[in-house]
This record gives sequence, structure tokens and C-alpha cells, in this order.
Amino acid sequence: MEDHDDGDIIEHHVEEEMEKRGARSHAASSSSFPESVTPSDGEGHSGTQSSHRLLAYSDALISIIATVMILPVAHTKVEDNEELRESVQLLLTTKIAVYLMTFLIVTMAWAAHIKLFQVIVRIDDCLALLNLACMMLITFLPYTFSLMATFPENVLGILLFCGCVMVIGVIQAVIVLYAFSRPFLLNEQIQISENRTIYKHHILKVIMRVPLMCFFASIFSFIFFQLSYLLLAIVIFLPYISQSLKWCRSKAMGPVDESPDSMLFYTYLPSEPLSKERVEAFSDGVYAIVATLLILDICEDNVPDPLTVQKQFGGSLIAALQVYGPEYLAYFGSFATVGLLWFVHHSLFLHVTKTTRFMGLLNSFSLAFVGGLPLAYQLTHEFPHNSRNELEAIQISCVIIFFAGIFQLAIWVVALYNEQETLHPYVRYGGREHVFMLAKLALYPCIALGTFFLTCILSKFSAPIFHLMEITVPFAFLVLRLLVRVGLALLRLMFCPERPDLRSVVEEEDDDSRVQFNALVT
Amino acid sequence: MEDHDDGDIIEHHVEEEMEKRGARSHAASSSSFPESVTPSDGEGHSGTQSSHRLLAYSDALISIIATVMILPVAHTKVEDNEELRESVQLLLTTKIAVYLMTFLIVTMAWAAHIKLFQVIVRIDDCLALLNLACMMLITFLPYTFSLMATFPENVLGILLFCGCVMVIGVIQAVIVLYAFSRPFLLNEQIQISENRTIYKHHILKVIMRVPLMCFFASIFSFIFFQLSYLLLAIVIFLPYISQSLKWCRSKAMGPVDESPDSMLFYTYLPSEPLSKERVEAFSDGVYAIVATLLILDICEDNVPDPLTVQKQFGGSLIAALQVYGPEYLAYFGSFATVGLLWFVHHSLFLHVTKTTRFMGLLNSFSLAFVGGLPLAYQLTHEFPHNSRNELEAIQISCVIIFFAGIFQLAIWVVALYNEQETLHPYVRYGGREHVFMLAKLALYPCIALGTFFLTCILSKFSAPIFHLMEITVPFAFLVLRLLVRVGLALLRLMFCPERPDLRSVVEEEDDDSRVQFNALVT
Repeated sequence: MEDHDDGDIIEHHVEEEMEKRGARSHAASSSSFPESVTPSDGEGHSGTQSSHRLLAYSDALISIIATVMILPVAHTKVEDNEELRESVQLLLTTKIAVYLMTFLIVTMAWAAHIKLFQVIVRIDDCLALLNLACMMLITFLPYTFSLMATFPENVLGILLFCGCVMVIGVIQAVIVLYAFSRPFLLNEQIQISENRTIYKHHILKVIMRVPLMCFFASIFSFIFFQLSYLLLAIVIFLPYISQSLKWCRSKAMGPVDESPDSMLFYTYLPSEPLSKERVEAFSDGVYAIVATLLILDICEDNVPDPLTVQKQFGGSLIAALQVYGPEYLAYFGSFATVGLLWFVHHSLFLHVTKTTRFMGLLNSFSLAFVGGLPLAYQLTHEFPHNSRNELEAIQISCVIIFFAGIFQLAIWVVALYNEQETLHPYVRYGGREHVFMLAKLALYPCIALGTFFLTCILSKFSAPIFHLMEITVPFAFLVLRLLVRVGLALLRLMFCPERPDLRSVVEEEDDDSRVQFNALVT
Repeated sequence: MEDHDDGDIIEHHVEEEMEKRGARSHAASSSSFPESVTPSDGEGHSGTQSSHRLLAYSDALISIIATVMILPVAHTKVEDNEELRESVQLLLTTKIAVYLMTFLIVTMAWAAHIKLFQVIVRIDDCLALLNLACMMLITFLPYTFSLMATFPENVLGILLFCGCVMVIGVIQAVIVLYAFSRPFLLNEQIQISENRTIYKHHILKVIMRVPLMCFFASIFSFIFFQLSYLLLAIVIFLPYISQSLKWCRSKAMGPVDESPDSMLFYTYLPSEPLSKERVEAFSDGVYAIVATLLILDICEDNVPDPLTVQKQFGGSLIAALQVYGPEYLAYFGSFATVGLLWFVHHSLFLHVTKTTRFMGLLNSFSLAFVGGLPLAYQLTHEFPHNSRNELEAIQISCVIIFFAGIFQLAIWVVALYNEQETLHPYVRYGGREHVFMLAKLALYPCIALGTFFLTCILSKFSAPIFHLMEITVPFAFLVLRLLVRVGLALLRLMFCPERPDLRSVVEEEDDDSRVQFNALVT
């Protein structure tokens, strides 16, 4: 609250006025989303606004920042004469690890941001500016982290990283204090609660945990810097570790009766741990920036110099562009892959009604691999035909696509474990769209796995063929519904020979027979 | 409809089923937005989905593609020994022009996309895939355009560009035909209309205009290629020219009574020419990518090589990083500027209830200059202190910021012309927030103009001072409300000396006195 005492004075009367209108604003903020899109009469005035667009902008910033760290990896020049395997191992040990860690760190910061703005549902100018300051430091985190990775034995990297995290923590604490001093900005549930002070202290405690550990880490860095790394690793993975431990324990010993306090420890709103809209917005941002990083490289590198065209190709632009042929093909192939992975993600989240923390974690893993696609694009078009490097580049691409797809499938499998809460009835086990959704989600992992083994068997497999395959996958999605229907009908024909009319079975489309059939298969 | 006959067959029964549920889906799609966010029971099943997330993803893609074309401009190496003026003139003639033209072309494609999905409010898998194909070609447009700009006398660039536009047109026509063959996907207004066929033909005619002109342009390119450029320029600027002509005419000769047909010529829904949500999403995308392009450069270029640190700085990382000092300052300064321009845009559109085409055009201009900020960032930290180049780089930055801000102000001024329809009552002339909004919008143009003249007078003005100024602007926004109040109170004191109690005037905050005061000033 240091630097906006002016704001305190001048906006004091606003608060009083708003509290008079309390009952009305309670009613308005109970369903936070529709109201946030079409501003009601009461808002926009007296300085409070819905937080919808601020959150969308934050999501866009954070998703781009999480993803662009792949560029230093993708732009690493791999020498053509040395073996790809060695250079990739060099990459793997440093840059890819940095990319994945940065992605996780930024995702953590994003999850903290979600939690914060589940408590604060309305904003005013001051909060918007504080949030922008917070964003500025979050976008600076990847840089401090790459410094830390490049100079692991230098204290400065740790200090800069910890400094950023601490300042972010302080800004978030200021945001919380500011919001609690103006209760009309808060979530309705907390607004009407009697023990608002307890909430405030609890939230402040949760927020300050990470900066405090960073403070200790920065002190230890002067004494014994390995200890600081240990502390930082604990900070980053603490929620994930505790979450997975809890999950394992609940699987091993049956559901534990959790006190509401222990739930509150990681999420302020136990009923909805991650906001579905924000998960979608974050994912959209990652998919969009990955798709455009590809064309960005083409626009920067593949416009030939007029002088070169004149000298080397006798003024023939077509001849000059033919050199770039494989890159265009690689671009269209990669765009098709990114687009379709988005499409599968879109179809999946259309049927997801609630996102649990574990689903969010799997989604982050999937997105981290999607962010690796520019690397795949870079590798596949950069080697000469029929070299061993080319085959290995294709295999790396297959591995990236496989993991991106398999984690999407995993989200659905996890959602099915608790389908009453997390899934729409149509895709639940036995639902009308269940098998079709499974086919959609399984398509990419299957294709990637198949291609991987093809490259092991066929030595003639080349990057252009791979990219052509990528471009033809959309047609597979178009005929997928037909294939699923025919497959189901054939299965039904095998198991229920008393209903031989395939055409009528396909057109019948009644839930009962589908459920019956599913029961039969298991 | 060429390549998804399979889809036609298998989804035929879906259509029948949906038409049976017609009355219900009519009711559901009447208010398209809230329903698109929280999927109703009826959707997600039988393959139709709300188009909300598809549009958000398209907006993200298009906004990033429009903006990243600044990178070839920003990454142009400006030699230190030559004068900045000359190199900037070289830049201005080619790369900046290409950037601005690309931005306009992509914005045009985006406007066409908005119009299309104002007609089609629900999607299914097939439409989603067709839209992705459309996006793939739109992201390829900037590349074909830069080819055209680099080789203006070569036919190939024109052919590629026209080819892309024609294929986009064909895909959009297929989308329209597909959607009209499944009426439950359409806008309710068209869905219940009796002359649906007329609508279909009209929309197809509007969509096919541009590809047809490109077809003629590509034919003329073989005969007399200057004519093709003329045709393309007409294609790109036609709606803007006609719009501004119409506006001038209506100002000169009074409002013309427009037949509904002439309105329909440019927009299918005369009541809402540009969807406000999509304008916001597009703007958010541009602001987000601009903010992150800055840190991207830092992450790629400013992590020193361990060997260099060892050799040149005797292993001292701090000394090595001090070389980059100005760049960090430039980063924080530029991020603050981008963030605050977003903040002003956010405040403005919070009070805008409807976006007219002209406001959309001004918004595009503002965003085009915002997209130029990475260039400003690159220029300001790249020259030695106290050189003439440095001063000129600061002046260029001021010009970019000034235009970005002045076009935002222009949006508001245009909105005020028709304030009953386009603005929230609180910011209308005489409204409670009117003066405050004016101050917010005028702050950046004033600061930029002031700084520009300061650089002319003070020869000691340097880039670090400029960036420090940029960082202190947020505090100006924090105290702005206070300043506006005090300013108003002083004015009131001068004109209405019978109410001398400044304190009570400030705290009173009643609309009547404000309106009274505004009437008095004019």
C-alpha cells in the first residue's frame, strides 16, 4: 500500500457509495461471467470494472511468455556434418531443460494468478495498474531463469530470480490488501462471509510463502548455493508433489476425509480449483503463438535478397524460391498439426465442465510439448534428404507430437475417473459421443507412434513425406465419424448377429443400444 | 463442398434431428454470447458447438500475424557510423510500408472473418476444420506480401498473393454453403427469415468479390502488371474509401436515407457492424504480442556467453550484464508504455457499447502504431549516449507513441458524435466520468508531444531519461483522478465563486452540478 495513498484518499467516497449499493452489486456478481461480458448498468462507473478483459490479457501475456522460450532452442544451429544425436543430447541437457522448466515456472505463476483473481472478481484502475506491474515482472522471469541456467555457479542469477519472485509476491500482497480494503471488489462468497479477516490472513500467508522461501534461498546463495537450488526446486514443485502424493494416497488407502482448511491451503475456492475459461484462454494463447512462430521464421529468413537472386539464379525468382520448397511444406504440415491439436483440445474442453488441478497439470505438460513443435519444424527441414539426421529429426517430431497428444488423452482419462463432476453427459462412459471422442483423442498418438515405427522400418522415409502426412491428417478427422460408426457397427455385427441391418443401426442413433453395446464390450 | 461428401452423408440425420429441435435452438441462440460461454445442455452433442472459442483462437492468430511483421523492420541492423536519418528513410520506404500494408491487409481479412461469423453463430467439426484451413492461408498472406514488396516487378509475388486470397475466398464460400445447408448453424435472424436464399446469394456475392478481383489482377499481371497493383489497391481500400466517402457526404449534405440493401452490402447485420468482443480480443492479442516481442529479444540476445564473460570480464557476470543495462531499462520502459496503452484502451472500450466501422478503422491505425513500439525499443537502446542518432531515435519513439495515443483519442471523439448509440451514459458529454476519460486518453499524446519538444530544446536528453520517464507514467495515471478533480474544482472556483468550499465540492460528486458546470464551460 506504499505508493498510492493518493488513491486511498480520493477513492474513499467511492467505496462508501458502493457499499450503499451493496445488495445490488452482490446480486450482479453472483454469476460472474455473463455479467463480465456485457457490462451491466452499475459498472464502468465509480471506477470499478469487471475483470474479464484484464484476465484475458494476462492469460495472453503469460501463455506467450511461456512458449517463446522455445525460440532459443529452435534457433540453435545444428551443424550438418556432425551427428544430430550428439547435438541433440547437448541441446537436451541445457536448452530444452531450460525451456521445460521455464514453462513450468510460468505456469505456476499463472496458477497463482488464477487463484488470486478467483478471490478478486472486480477491478478498478489501481488494481489494473498493479496487475500490469505484476505482469511486467512475470515476463522478466524467463530471462532471469536463463541467466541462472547459463551461469549455474554464479550467485547473481539466483539473486535476480529470487528478487523478481519476491517483488511479484509483494505486489500480489498489495493487491490483496487493496482489494480487502474495498470489499465490493471481492468474490461474493468472501464479501458476505463474517470472517473476512481470517480469509485475508490466510490468502496473504499462502501468497507470501513463495517469496519467503525465495528470500531464504537468496540468503543461502551466499553461503552454500546448492542449497538455494534445492529450496527453489521445492518452491516450484511443492504444489505438484503434494497434489500427486495426495492422489496416490487416496488411491491406495481410499478417499481421505479432507477438512475444508486443508483444501483451502491450495485453492481459495474448493469447488472450482482452476477456472475453465482461463485454462482455455491460456491454451489458446500457446497454440496461437506456436502456429505463428513458424510463419515468423519463414517471413524473416525466406525472402531472398534481390541481389542473390540476380547473381545465383539468373534473376529467376521461381528457382530461388524452389530452394525454400521444403520449408513451405514443413510450415503447412506443422500448422496443420498445431491447428488439429488445438481442434482436439477444443473438442475435449467443450465437454469438460470443471477443470481439476491434476487435469490442469496434464494440460500444462501437453502444452509444453506443443510449444516444442517449432523445434520439430526447424529440425525437419534443415537436413539433406535421405540422411540419418533427417530420419532422426522426424523421430523427434513424432515423439513431440505423441506426447502432446497422449497428455490430451490423459486429461480425458483423468476426467472419466470423476465423470459425474467433470464431464458432460454425452462423453461420459456410455454416452453418445464417448467412442467418437476417444477416437479423436487417440488419433494423433496413434499416427505419431505409427510414423515413428515406419521410420525405423523404411529407410526411404523422408521429411517431405512426413509433412505431406501431416497435411492429410485433417481428412482423417473428417472421415473419423464415419470410421467410428462403421467400426462400431461391425463390432455390433460380430457380437449381436441378431441385428444384421447395418444401415439401420448406423442411422438409429439411440442411446440405449449404445449403452447396451458398451456394457457388452466390457 | 468438394471434399467432404462423406461428412454430408453421415451428418444428414444430425441435421434432421436438429431441425426437429428447431424451436428450442432458436430460443437458445437468440442471445449468442452468454450461451456460448456456458454450454447449454443442447449443445456439445450431435456435433454442433458454440463458436466462441474458435473465434477467440482466430482473433489471437490474426492479431499475432498482423503484428509480427514488425520484426523484420525492428531487426534491421542500423549501422552506427551512418546517420540514422538516412537509414530510417531507407527503412520507411520499404519495410515500414510493408509492415503497415500487411497490417491493413490482415485487418481486412479479419473484418471479413467477423462478418462471416456474425452470420454463422454455431459451428460443427467440419466448419472448425474449414476455418483452420482459412487461418493457415491468412497466416501465409504476410509472406506472399513481403515477396511482392521485395520483387515488385516479378509476376510470381502477385500470383502467390492472389492465389492465397482466391483460395481463402473459395474456403469461405464453402463455409457459407455448408452453413446454409445446415440452418441451425446460422444467426437466428437469418434462420427464421423467409428469404434465406437471397441472404445466401448476397453473402456469397460479397465474399466472392475480392477473389474475383484478385483473379483479374493475376490475369492482368501477365499483360501489364502495374494494372494488377492498382486492382489490388482498390480491393484492399474499397470498403475504407467507400466508408469515408459516405461519411464525408453525410457530413456535407446531411444524412442520406440509406436503403437497407446498401447497408447490407458491407455488413450482414446493420445493427452491429463490428462485434465489440472481437475488437477487444484482437486488440488484446496485438498488445500482448508487442509486450512479449520485447522480452523475446532480451532472452535471445542478452544472455552472455560463459566464454566471453571469462575472457572479457574476468569472470564477473555483473560487469558483463552492465553492458546490457540500457536494454533492461528500455525493456521496462517499453513494457510500461505498452501496458498503459492497453490500460487506456481497456478503459475506453469498457464504456463503448457498440463499435462502428469507422471506430474499428481508427482502432486498427492505433494498433498499427502500437505494433511499431518494438522498433522504437530497438532504436532507443542501440545508439551511444549523447549522439544525434539517440535523440532522433527518441523522437521516432515519441511519434509512434503519439499516434498510437491520438488514434485512441480519435475513437472516443468519433464515439461522442453518436454518443446515444455508442457510449455508456457515464462518459457521454456531461457524464460523471467524461472529463476523467478525456484526461486518460489525452495523457499519452500530451506526454509524447512534450517529450518530442523537450528533445528539440535540451541537447542533453538521453535514452535512459526517456525510459525512466516511461516508467514513471503509471504514477501519473494513479494521481490523474486527483489532478482532474482538483483541476475541475479550481475551474469551478473561478467560474462559480459563490461555492468556495473546495473540499465539499470534491466530495459531493453529484451529477447535476457536473452537468451544470459543463454547460457553463461551453
